[in-house]
Amino acid sequence: MIGETLQLGLAGLGTVGSGVYETLCRNRELLEARAQISYAIRKVAVGNLARKRDVQIAPELLTDNWHELVDDPDIDIIIELIGGTDEAYRLVKAALMAGKPVVTGNKAVLAVYGSELFKLSAEMNVPLYFEASCGGGIPIIQSLQNSLICNKVQSIAGIINGTSNYILTSMKEQGLPLSEALSNAQKLGFAEADPSFDINGWDAAHKALILAMLAYGTPLSPDKIHVHGIEKVESVDISMAEKLGYTIKLLVVIKHHEADKALELRVQPSFVPQQHLLASVNGVFNAIAVKGDIVGETIFYGRGAGKNPTSSAVIGDVVLAMRECRLNGYHTGFLPYTKELAVLPMGETVTPYYVRFDIHDRPGMIAAIASMFAKYDVSISATSSNFGYVDEDGVQHNHLVFMVHACKWVRLKYVLRELRENHVIDRLPVVFRIETFND
Amino acid sequence: MIGETLQLGLAGLGTVGSGVYETLCRNRELLEARAQISYAIRKVAVGNLARKRDVQIAPELLTDNWHELVDDPDIDIIIELIGGTDEAYRLVKAALMAGKPVVTGNKAVLAVYGSELFKLSAEMNVPLYFEASCGGGIPIIQSLQNSLICNKVQSIAGIINGTSNYILTSMKEQGLPLSEALSNAQKLGFAEADPSFDINGWDAAHKALILAMLAYGTPLSPDKIHVHGIEKVESVDISMAEKLGYTIKLLVVIKHHEADKALELRVQPSFVPQQHLLASVNGVFNAIAVKGDIVGETIFYGRGAGKNPTSSAVIGDVVLAMRECRLNGYHTGFLPYTKELAVLPMGETVTPYYVRFDIHDRPGMIAAIASMFAKYDVSISATSSNFGYVDEDGVQHNHLVFMVHACKWVRLKYVLRELRENHVIDRLPVVFRIETFND
Repeated sequence: MIGETLQLGLAGLGTVGSGVYETLCRNRELLEARAQISYAIRKVAVGNLARKRDVQIAPELLTDNWHELVDDPDIDIIIELIGGTDEAYRLVKAALMAGKPVVTGNKAVLAVYGSELFKLSAEMNVPLYFEASCGGGIPIIQSLQNSLICNKVQSIAGIINGTSNYILTSMKEQGLPLSEALSNAQKLGFAEADPSFDINGWDAAHKALILAMLAYGTPLSPDKIHVHGIEKVESVDISMAEKLGYTIKLLVVIKHHEADKALELRVQPSFVPQQHLLASVNGVFNAIAVKGDIVGETIFYGRGAGKNPTSSAVIGDVVLAMRECRLNGYHTGFLPYTKELAVLPMGETVTPYYVRFDIHDRPGMIAAIASMFAKYDVSISATSSNFGYVDEDGVQHNHLVFMVHACKWVRLKYVLRELRENHVIDRLPVVFRIETFND
Repeated sequence: MIGETLQLGLAGLGTVGSGVYETLCRNRELLEARAQISYAIRKVAVGNLARKRDVQIAPELLTDNWHELVDDPDIDIIIELIGGTDEAYRLVKAALMAGKPVVTGNKAVLAVYGSELFKLSAEMNVPLYFEASCGGGIPIIQSLQNSLICNKVQSIAGIINGTSNYILTSMKEQGLPLSEALSNAQKLGFAEADPSFDINGWDAAHKALILAMLAYGTPLSPDKIHVHGIEKVESVDISMAEKLGYTIKLLVVIKHHEADKALELRVQPSFVPQQHLLASVNGVFNAIAVKGDIVGETIFYGRGAGKNPTSSAVIGDVVLAMRECRLNGYHTGFLPYTKELAVLPMGETVTPYYVRFDIHDRPGMIAAIASMFAKYDVSISATSSNFGYVDEDGVQHNHLVFMVHACKWVRLKYVLRELRENHVIDRLPVVFRIETFND
C-alpha cells in the first residue's frame, strides 16, 4: 500500500489479463466510488517483454519476472492470469507465502494443486480468490460461498464449457457433424487451436471439482470425477433426442447422496428435457443450476468465457481482496471445513437412459435384446426406431432406441455386456444418461 | 457479543421469520463451519405473545417489544422481518442509531424510506443488508454489489413478482381468465387475500427501485417509476402473443441511457420473445437479467418468494453481518455513490409495440387507422387479425393487431389520440410493449 492506495500486481497479459488491465483503467471512477477504495496497478509480469500488444500500457510497468511482483513489499494483491499449471502454481504459492492475497482464474491449478494451495492459504491466513475459475462472468463462486451459505447443497447441474456447448448447439441447429461444428467454432474464435480439454470434458471437470469443493467443503482430486466428453456425439442422437423431447448438453452433475454420505460427480453429454431452462442455454453461454435444501432451485446464466466476462469475475474478486486486505486477518476466502468426501462408484449412480442399438437382423434381435433387459429387471419406458437410416458416408443403419427407466448404471452395464458376450449384438450401443432434475 | 458468540435479535416470527429461525437452528453446524463463526439467537420480538405458532421456540426468548432487542447491549445484529412500513422503519432506524447492523427483507420500507435510511447508515457507519428484499432466494443484491462491481449496468430486465407470474402462467397454460387464475393462486397460497400490490405492479416496482439504486448508486423515490400491473391483461392478448412468438410477462425494465444521462424505469406487462430465457420463467419463479458493459448478459433465476427461499437470502446477509460486525467500521453494505439520477420521461422511451384494436366497420377502419400511423411516421412491421372472435361473455369482436416498429412512445400516443379524437375508433386499443433485449 502506498498512502491509502492499494497496489496491484498483475501476472499475465494475455486475453483475460489485458481485459482486466483495461477495465481497471476504464471503469476506475465507478469502481473506486462503489468500493470506496483507491488502487493502482504497480507492476505487470509478462512472458515476453518484446511482444507487441493491443493493450496500451506504459513499458516501465512491465517485467518478465513475476518474482518482482511477489517480492515487492508495496504490492498488496497478486492477480494470477498467466495460465498453465506448474508455473502458475509456483507463483500462487510464492504469493501466499509472501502473505499476499491472490486472485486467480486458473481452474487447472486449482484442480491439480487446490488441496495444497488451500491448506497453505489457511495456514498463512491469506486468501485465494477464484471466481473467474468457473463460469466466466457468472458469479457462481461468491454465490455458493456467501449468499447461499446456509444451504445444504443437494445438487449442482451445469453447462460450464462454452466451446462444447457452442459445438452441440450448432450440431443441433445447423445439422452439422461434430468435426465441422468444431472447425467452425475454431474459425470464429470459440474454440482454441488445441481444443482437447473442451472436447474431452476435462475443462468442465476441473470446474466441477471447484464447485464441488465449495459446496461440500474440501478440495477433491481429479481422479474422483468420471469424465466423458463430446467426442462421440453423433448427429443421429442429436436429432433422436430432439424428437423425444430432449436436448443433448455436456452436463456436469454433482449430487449429494445423504444416505450413502457420498457424492456423485460426473461430466457426460446427457439428455436434458426441453422444458428445463438448461436445455435453452445455447452457444457459448454457460448456466449452473444449484439446488439447496433451503433456497430450492436457482440457476445462474451468463457468458462462461471470453476476455470481458472473465475480467468482470476477476475484478469482483480483486475488489473483495482489496477490501479485505486492509483488515487484519479477516477474509472470506475459501477455507476447507470438511475432512473427507466419499465418491459414489459410477455403477451405483441412478438415472434413466437412452440406449441406441445399430442392428442387422431386426425381428430376432429386438426380441433377444428386450429379453436381456427383462432378465436383469431393467425396465424399458419406450422404444423408438429409425430403420434404413443413411449416415453421412452413405452407409445404411437400423437404429433401435430403448428409453430405460431409472436404474443403477451397473445393471444396465450387465445387460449390455451379456448382450455383447452372447453375440446378440456385435458392438455396444450408444448410451446417454437422461437427467430428470426431479430429486 | 457474549464470548466469541455473536448474538442475534430477530424481530418478526411470521412466515419468513419462522423460516429464518428454523434454518438458523437446523443448519447451524454447517453454517458455523463454513463461516467460521458462532452465533446464538438471543431474543425474538413478536406482535402477539399469545399466538400459537408452528415453530418450536423457548418462550423465554420471546418479547412483544422490539425495543428490547435494540436496547440489549449484547445483541450484535437485528433481523427485521416484521413487515409493514412505518413500524419497520422505526425499528430499522432505532437499530442503526444504536449502532447495530440490520438485515431486512422489507422492500416497502426501502422503497419509501430508503433515502433516509441509507443516509443514516452512512452517517453511523452501520450497514443495512437487504438481499431478501428482491428476488427471494436469488442472490441478486450481493451479485450486483460485489461480483459485478466493475460493470456499468446497461440494463436490468426482470420478472420479480411471483404471484403475477403464476397468474400469467396459468392464464397461458390453462386458458383461464385473470379472475379465475387469481382465485386459484389464492387457494394454493401463491397469492395473498389482498393481492393488490402483486396485481397492480407495485410489489415489483418497489423491488425495481432497489435494483436501480444498487445499479446506479442512489435511492430513488417511488414517484420516479412508471407502473402498470396485470389487471387488464386479457386472455385474447395472451393467445395472440403466443401466436406471434411472444409470451406476456410482468416485466421490470431499468435501462441506462448514457447519452441522455437518464434512467428508463418501468413495470409493465410486456411481450417477451419466446426464445429469450425470461419467456420460459414460469409459475412463482423469478428471474433477473442484468446486462453489464464488461460481463455482457447474465441471468439469475430462482424462487422469488416463500418461507425458505427468502430465509436463505436473509441468512446469507446475517452471515455477512456477523462477519463484518467483528471488524471495526468495515462493511460492504450499500453506500450511495451518486448524487442524483434523472429519469427519462415515458414519452421518450422507445420499444416496438403490439397494438390491438377492436373494430366495427372493417375495410374503412383498417385504412383510416393505417393512414394515421403513416401520418405520424409510425411504422407497422406486421398486422394480424382475428375477426369474429367471441369472448367469454359471448360477445363478438373484430380484433385487428398492428405490430409497430420501435418508436418513441409519445409518437404512438399521438396516433392513438388523434384516432380517438377523430372518432375513427371509439375506444383506445390495447397496447403492449415488445422487449427486444437487443440494446
